[in-house]
Amino acid sequence: MFYFTLDILGTIAFAISGVLVAMEKRLDVFGVFIVAFVTAVGGGSLRDMLIGNTPVIWMQQSVYAITIIATVIFAIIFQSKLKYFRRSLFLFDTLGIGLYTMVGIEKGLSAGLTPIMCVALGTMTASFGGVIRDTLCNEIPVIFRKEIYATACILGGFSYFLLRELPIADAYAYMAGLVIVIGIRLLAVRFKIALPSIYPKN
Amino acid sequence: MFYFTLDILGTIAFAISGVLVAMEKRLDVFGVFIVAFVTAVGGGSLRDMLIGNTPVIWMQQSVYAITIIATVIFAIIFQSKLKYFRRSLFLFDTLGIGLYTMVGIEKGLSAGLTPIMCVALGTMTASFGGVIRDTLCNEIPVIFRKEIYATACILGGFSYFLLRELPIADAYAYMAGLVIVIGIRLLAVRFKIALPSIYPKN
Amino acid sequence: MFYFTLDILGTIAFAISGVLVAMEKRLDVFGVFIVAFVTAVGGGSLRDMLIGNTPVIWMQQSVYAITIIATVIFAIIFQSKLKYFRRSLFLFDTLGIGLYTMVGIEKGLSAGLTPIMCVALGTMTASFGGVIRDTLCNEIPVIFRKEIYATACILGGFSYFLLRELPIADAYAYMAGLVIVIGIRLLAVRFKIALPSIYPKN
Repeated sequence: MFYFTLDILGTIAFAISGVLVAMEKRLDVFGVFIVAFVTAVGGGSLRDMLIGNTPVIWMQQSVYAITIIATVIFAIIFQSKLKYFRRSLFLFDTLGIGLYTMVGIEKGLSAGLTPIMCVALGTMTASFGGVIRDTLCNEIPVIFRKEIYATACILGGFSYFLLRELPIADAYAYMAGLVIVIGIRLLAVRFKIALPSIYPKN
Repeated sequence: MFYFTLDILGTIAFAISGVLVAMEKRLDVFGVFIVAFVTAVGGGSLRDMLIGNTPVIWMQQSVYAITIIATVIFAIIFQSKLKYFRRSLFLFDTLGIGLYTMVGIEKGLSAGLTPIMCVALGTMTASFGGVIRDTLCNEIPVIFRKEIYATACILGGFSYFLLRELPIADAYAYMAGLVIVIGIRLLAVRFKIALPSIYPKN
Repeated sequence: MFYFTLDILGTIAFAISGVLVAMEKRLDVFGVFIVAFVTAVGGGSLRDMLIGNTPVIWMQQSVYAITIIATVIFAIIFQSKLKYFRRSLFLFDTLGIGLYTMVGIEKGLSAGLTPIMCVALGTMTASFGGVIRDTLCNEIPVIFRKEIYATACILGGFSYFLLRELPIADAYAYMAGLVIVIGIRLLAVRFKIALPSIYPKN
C-alpha cells in the first residue's frame, strides 16, 4: 500500500511534468495528453520491452491510465494554478524516481540480470519517460544537460546491492536504496549541486 | 480481402506521407526510404512490441516491405506529379487510420487487455508511425498540433466497444467502428473542425 | 574469438561516436554517457525487441556495458587527443557495421525470417544506434543525409544470401558478406562516392 501510494504520486508528478512541457510548446489537447502519457509510462514501457515483460505493466493495470487521464484533465483546468503546486510536484517527482529506480531493479532481478544491469534498468525506468518527453517536444533531454538526476538513481541502486550483502532483511536494503535516491536528489537540488563539468575551461 | 485491400492502401498512404516529409528535409534516397518505412510500420511495430507479439507483423509478412519499397520508388520517380494525387492520398490515409485503429483494438483483445487499453493500442497503431516520422525529421509531431486525428481513432474505438454490447454480430460492430473513425476524420477535415483550444486567450 | 574482437572494436567505435556528438552539444557527463550507451547498443536493442529476443543481448552479457563505461571514461579524459585516433576510429566503426550487419542477419535467420527481412534487421542493427544518437541530440540523423552507410549493409547482406546459394561453406559466405559491407564503406569514403541525388537540379 505504501509503495503503491508512492507509485501513484510518481505517476501524477511525471504526467504533470509532461503537461507542462507540452503546454509550453502550445500543443493541442491531444498532444498534451500523449506527452503526459509517455512521460509517465515511457520509462517503464522501455524497461518491460527490453526484458520481454509484455504486455507492458500499464496495459495490465488500468490504474495508471486512469490516473494519467484524471491528472491531465485536472492540470489543464487548473493550468493557471499549477505554479502553486511546484513544491509538491517536485517532491512527488522525487518520490517517483526513487520508487521507479527500485521497481526497475526488482524487475531486473526477476529477469535474472546482474546488479550492473539491474541498476541500468532502474535508472532507465526513472529517467527515460522524461527523455522521450523532451525528444517528442524537439528538445535535447533536460536530464542530459543539468541536475543530479540519474546520478541519484545510480548511487541509490548500487547502495541497495551493497546493503544486500549485509545480514539485514532485503526489505530494509530496498527501503534504504529508495531513501538514498530521494535524499541525494533533494540535497542536490537544495544545495544546487551539479555534476562536475567535463569540458576544459576557456 | 476487403480489409487486406484497405491495409495495403493505408500502407501506401503512410509510406508516401513519409516520403513527402523526408524530401522536404532534402534527405538522401536511403533517408527517404527509412522515413517512409518507419511511418508505415512504426505504429504497428510499437504496438506489437508493447504487447509482446513478436516478431512484429511486418517481419512475418513480406507484403508490407514490398509495398513500401515499390511505393517509395514510385514516389521518387513521380515526385513532381505527387501533388495531383493529394486527394487520393488523403483518402487512403483516412482509410488506413480507420483500419489500423481497428486492427490495434483486435490485437489488444487477443492479448486480453481491457477496452480502454485496446483503444489506446488502436490509436497508437494508427498514429505513432507519423509521430516517429516527425521526430526523426526533427519536427514536433504534426498530430500533436493540429487536426482531428487521434480523436477520431479514440471515438471510433469506444463506439466499437459500445456497439459490441448490442445484440449484433461482432463483424457489424467492427465495421461500424471503422466507418466512425473514417467519418469523423473526413468531416473534421471537410468542415475544418479542430480541437477546442486549451489555452487562455490573450 | 575473431568475431568477438570485431564486436568489441565496433562497440568502442560506436560509443566514441556517441561521446563526440554529445560533447559537441555540451551535455553533462551523464548525458555523454547515455548517448554513448544508446549509440552502441541502440541498434541491437531495437533488433532484439522487434524479434522478441529478450532480455536484449547487452543485458545478458556484461562485456558490452563494461566496454562502454571504460570507453566513455577514456574518451572524456583524453578528449583533446581523440582527433589523433580519427583514422583508427573510422576503421573500428567500419568493422563494427560490417559485423553488426551480419549478426543482425543471423538473428533474423534464427527467428525464421525471410532474406529480405534479415537484411532489414542487419541494416537496422548497424545503423539505428546512430539514428537514436542523433535524434536524442536533436539532429536529423546523419546517415539519412550523406554517405554510403546503410547501402553498404544492404548490398553486403544480399551478397551473403546470394553466396549461400553456391556450394560453399556457410562460414565463407558469412565472411564474404562481412568483407563486402566493409569494402563498400571503405571505397565509398576513400573515393568520396555518395548516393545519387533524387532531387531535380535547380
